[in-house]
Amino acid sequence: MFELNQNFQKLPGNYLFATIARKVKAFSAEHPDMDLVRLGIGDVTRPLSSAVITAMQKAVLEMGDEKTFHGYGPDFGYDFLVNAIAENDYASRGVTIDKDEIFVSDGCKSDSGNIGDIFAMDNYVAVCDPVYPVYVDTNVMSGRAGEFDPETGLWSNFMYLKCEEKNSFIPQIPAIRDGERTPDMIYLCFPNNPSGASIGYKDLAAWVGYARKVGAVILFDSAYEAFISEDLPHSIFEIPGAKECAIELRSFSKTAGFTGVRCGYTVISKELVRDGVRVRDLWARRQATKFNGVSYITQCAAAAIYTPEGKEQTKAVIAAYMDNARILREGLTALGFEVSGGVNAPYIWIKTKNGMTSWEFFDFLLEKVGVVGTPGSGFGPCGEGFFRLTAFGSKEASQEALRRIATLA
Amino acid sequence: MFELNQNFQKLPGNYLFATIARKVKAFSAEHPDMDLVRLGIGDVTRPLSSAVITAMQKAVLEMGDEKTFHGYGPDFGYDFLVNAIAENDYASRGVTIDKDEIFVSDGCKSDSGNIGDIFAMDNYVAVCDPVYPVYVDTNVMSGRAGEFDPETGLWSNFMYLKCEEKNSFIPQIPAIRDGERTPDMIYLCFPNNPSGASIGYKDLAAWVGYARKVGAVILFDSAYEAFISEDLPHSIFEIPGAKECAIELRSFSKTAGFTGVRCGYTVISKELVRDGVRVRDLWARRQATKFNGVSYITQCAAAAIYTPEGKEQTKAVIAAYMDNARILREGLTALGFEVSGGVNAPYIWIKTKNGMTSWEFFDFLLEKVGVVGTPGSGFGPCGEGFFRLTAFGSKEASQEALRRIATLA
Repeated sequence: MFELNQNFQKLPGNYLFATIARKVKAFSAEHPDMDLVRLGIGDVTRPLSSAVITAMQKAVLEMGDEKTFHGYGPDFGYDFLVNAIAENDYASRGVTIDKDEIFVSDGCKSDSGNIGDIFAMDNYVAVCDPVYPVYVDTNVMSGRAGEFDPETGLWSNFMYLKCEEKNSFIPQIPAIRDGERTPDMIYLCFPNNPSGASIGYKDLAAWVGYARKVGAVILFDSAYEAFISEDLPHSIFEIPGAKECAIELRSFSKTAGFTGVRCGYTVISKELVRDGVRVRDLWARRQATKFNGVSYITQCAAAAIYTPEGKEQTKAVIAAYMDNARILREGLTALGFEVSGGVNAPYIWIKTKNGMTSWEFFDFLLEKVGVVGTPGSGFGPCGEGFFRLTAFGSKEASQEALRRIATLA
Repeated sequence: MFELNQNFQKLPGNYLFATIARKVKAFSAEHPDMDLVRLGIGDVTRPLSSAVITAMQKAVLEMGDEKTFHGYGPDFGYDFLVNAIAENDYASRGVTIDKDEIFVSDGCKSDSGNIGDIFAMDNYVAVCDPVYPVYVDTNVMSGRAGEFDPETGLWSNFMYLKCEEKNSFIPQIPAIRDGERTPDMIYLCFPNNPSGASIGYKDLAAWVGYARKVGAVILFDSAYEAFISEDLPHSIFEIPGAKECAIELRSFSKTAGFTGVRCGYTVISKELVRDGVRVRDLWARRQATKFNGVSYITQCAAAAIYTPEGKEQTKAVIAAYMDNARILREGLTALGFEVSGGVNAPYIWIKTKNGMTSWEFFDFLLEKVGVVGTPGSGFGPCGEGFFRLTAFGSKEASQEALRRIATLA
């Protein structure tokens, strides 16, 4: 008799965004005249750039002609895209990444969910708190998380890296103590979702040093690197030694508005080795076996981001989003809120006022002024008392959210 | 110190199609003037239909306009596609499938690879021999396969369902014996890859009856149902009781030439339950957590297959491929080969002559006449002595292959 993966039963039922959607729906039903300002889910609102549209139109036509039709593509991406990635995202920053170290995929969520397949099931996992839920939930499914404690909101087998006000939301390197287990897999995401915090060369180098010392692999999610405005590492591979201890996950979702197009990539250096086995080879085998590549049209779209027009247009869209971030950050600060993020990331991380919990603040903003954000506690216990707004709305929506919140002061 | 998933090390190194590619490359290098006829890998050659192209052009333009832009879509597919699937692939055959039982994905390879995530790791797996390698390799990765025996080419923990000449390549229902374990997960693919065999209502009903009796789940891959020309079940859900014991995997890859577009779907009825838990709910959670949906443009393309023009055009393309199948089947039979498949499937399954092994026959055809096919033994020990040709080439290629093989007689 077949049995199910029992780990799935351990997952708490209420998924963050589902709960938000339910609350918003109920509120809208009761207040049909209230026009909501939605700055909750991190979805983009601006259309694809004309460079991308033009590339896709061409690719679509090619698919309709026998002479230029494309069937199955190369397992890990077409050379034209892989080379553009190596050149523009790495070589341009002084990092040499070989073609066979890049794996094009349908997005960072898939890759960060699937990457666990290639690691031993009893590896000890470290995650930030607060954290992007996919890292946690996928490790619950595979059995690495242990048991959930509803009191604390924590899993028994995770090492939690606290990201708090006092450490500027950058986790501290864990102390190495005799007899205490060190983590095997460390999930880091910078610029960070949800806090919008960013990491500097020195702090990231400290993490690389720690990972090398304890033999951990860092799963580095740099999906938001395009939003960096200061002098910060865009890739973990800018840190010497990182190739031997890190995997980098990238996405075009936020960089170029590809949330509805689906493309990203993962980079694993051939220097990342355990017991003589290249980790890259396992991921290659995993992807060749369980994935069949990304649509030719989508890959043409992604490659267009790296053309001169594509770069310019992408930069302009990011600048517009980051102007929203500035508006929200400055405006909320002026209203007396403690605000972080929004400088190198499209997320604004707000401390609630008057000791409200994150969900109280969510309800307060929704019910009083119809502004929808995301409760920080939904990302982990250390997110309690915080609230996330995204810069992905329109300029008008960002300004309107601010105007409405101002009426509450 | 992180450790890798040791199961990956158990996978034999030489992947079938990689070996073929290597041999073909070496031969071509030595014989640059020899024009090869490639009927090996099951990739399509005809372009996308004009209905699909038109739908994608429209969708691309929508993505370039703020008013019609689509970001993240619904986790399991847009209603317009899900409804078209339910109506055309199920209701039209008398099967009621609810909207929330359909999960749109980037293809059948991903789904058949990932579906194992939701089942217990110690389930006992039954696979056909010969078999599509993805079912085997993904269960090796997850640890369900046991150990590989290079002598027999078999894995210690699988139940093998032999598909041989004497059973017309339809596996027999295993006998139920006291003290012997029955399978928990049964992979079936009809019309079959690689043998091209198809299954009738009665035989499929027997499998459904068996699965219900022993409490197994059937993972039914019907990626080739569009090629059925006789009165056969297109979906396992046409068999009464199948909703309580089966999952169906479908793909647009071969149906509509989507190998380079990437779209398929999986159907799990709410009636498939274990210990009060709906299997559907676990797959929903798996997909919502580790996958982010299919490109809006791709879903518009898939929906276009179900329009009147799309249906007509798709049918014409399939008819052309099946004409190739007929040419190959009839021609090879006339040349004295024992041939099966090619009636309800785009694959021709040829018995080698003169006691040649599959690889000997592969080398013979490649070296003597430059025809590339796939050795049956690459799909499992019971494939030994057989050889697969696909009908996905052009008519000219199919005819040319036949002409060349005729010179060998």
